[in-house]
Amino acid sequence: MHIHIQLLPFSPAPNLVSDRVVVVIDILRATSVMVQAMSQGAREIIPVKTVEEAFQIVKSFPPGTTVLGGERESRKIEGFDLGNSPREYQGEKVRGKRLILTTTNGTKAFHAVSSGKKVLVGSFLNIAAVAERCFELNQDLFIYLSGDEGNFSLEATVCGGMLIDQIIKKGRRSLTLTDASRSAHILFQKFGANIVESFYLSQHGRDLVDRGFGEDLPYCAQVDTTNIVPVFEEGVIRIS
Amino acid sequence: MHIHIQLLPFSPAPNLVSDRVVVVIDILRATSVMVQAMSQGAREIIPVKTVEEAFQIVKSFPPGTTVLGGERESRKIEGFDLGNSPREYQGEKVRGKRLILTTTNGTKAFHAVSSGKKVLVGSFLNIAAVAERCFELNQDLFIYLSGDEGNFSLEATVCGGMLIDQIIKKGRRSLTLTDASRSAHILFQKFGANIVESFYLSQHGRDLVDRGFGEDLPYCAQVDTTNIVPVFEEGVIRIS
Repeated sequence: MHIHIQLLPFSPAPNLVSDRVVVVIDILRATSVMVQAMSQGAREIIPVKTVEEAFQIVKSFPPGTTVLGGERESRKIEGFDLGNSPREYQGEKVRGKRLILTTTNGTKAFHAVSSGKKVLVGSFLNIAAVAERCFELNQDLFIYLSGDEGNFSLEATVCGGMLIDQIIKKGRRSLTLTDASRSAHILFQKFGANIVESFYLSQHGRDLVDRGFGEDLPYCAQVDTTNIVPVFEEGVIRIS
Repeated sequence: MHIHIQLLPFSPAPNLVSDRVVVVIDILRATSVMVQAMSQGAREIIPVKTVEEAFQIVKSFPPGTTVLGGERESRKIEGFDLGNSPREYQGEKVRGKRLILTTTNGTKAFHAVSSGKKVLVGSFLNIAAVAERCFELNQDLFIYLSGDEGNFSLEATVCGGMLIDQIIKKGRRSLTLTDASRSAHILFQKFGANIVESFYLSQHGRDLVDRGFGEDLPYCAQVDTTNIVPVFEEGVIRIS
């Protein structure tokens, strides 16, 4: 099992992902929101790139069945129902609903790796379940970090490193690490005992604190609040 | 002083480097060769992208004044004087000579960051001298890793992290680290006591061992064999 992690968010060549399981990680906050929303009973999530696309798509569904969520510059978009804080995605707001989501980095990521053999949604909130699924699938793994406006993101890399760590610890399988996946694993080992510290050190984490979303940091740093594994397929994220 | 390290070898936007000091690092083996050659008295180095360009340029200088060096797939190029092992660049072979050098990753890197305010050549062989120079210049710093055929390179990142570590330890200056430079620093801390271990773990290091260049690993992992700081300016590398 070959494990690679792409440290910067450029579109990989399709042949690099087409025969691999891909895990998309955007801790602050898109994949945390997705996992949270689905764990609260959202029916499915449609990640879209633009605000216009979100408004367009919502029209094609019966009124009352959808929720519009997402952010620009970390803040809720005008006319949207919810922002990009996972704390908002609770109970009746999302249960049974179809979430149309657009964020600066995370929702684009899914389109960049859509040719992956399987595309899973990873976060600290469901990390053990994702690791278990990757182990069961027993395919080469490509971890895609959606980054922070094109830049390397520490907290997402730490999450990728934790995923690698959990797969390593399952043992019984020959693993090949690239320089990047080995480095992510080392970064996880540095912060493993105090994951949220990496959030406060990261540019994206500090930006969120400055913008009044400080409470999202410990929220997104929670480990294994759910055992669901959302899967992106044909443009839609569902539990599978 | 803002310190960034670019973890993957794409051309940075010119405005990202034009007001910064750039340090180019390609431990295995281009910048190690450059530092070694200049410490042995090479007069200057002209890094070129292609083999054809190297053969062309050499014609414009008087016979006997130049040395052609470099590699493709790690090996010496047919018709060249020297390969890309720093161990070859000794004494009379290079003293007083102009070196025309072409390598897979490293020589291209200099052209990618040529708009930098100053472009320095960094390696473990001259790391303290480079750190001291960066500290004296007191400008924002952009560390450029030439990568391993487009991929993230562990051993080069560890060297970048060591440079950051030495600047931090000089103290007396307010430093800003990005997620990437902080991560490189952590990776250095992991391998600092045994730098060459990171070479043996890296893909590029293992490839070199497989191709018969294993002795280059401990050679390039030597710290501070010289205090020279080669500088790239208008297409030529000289000591300054």
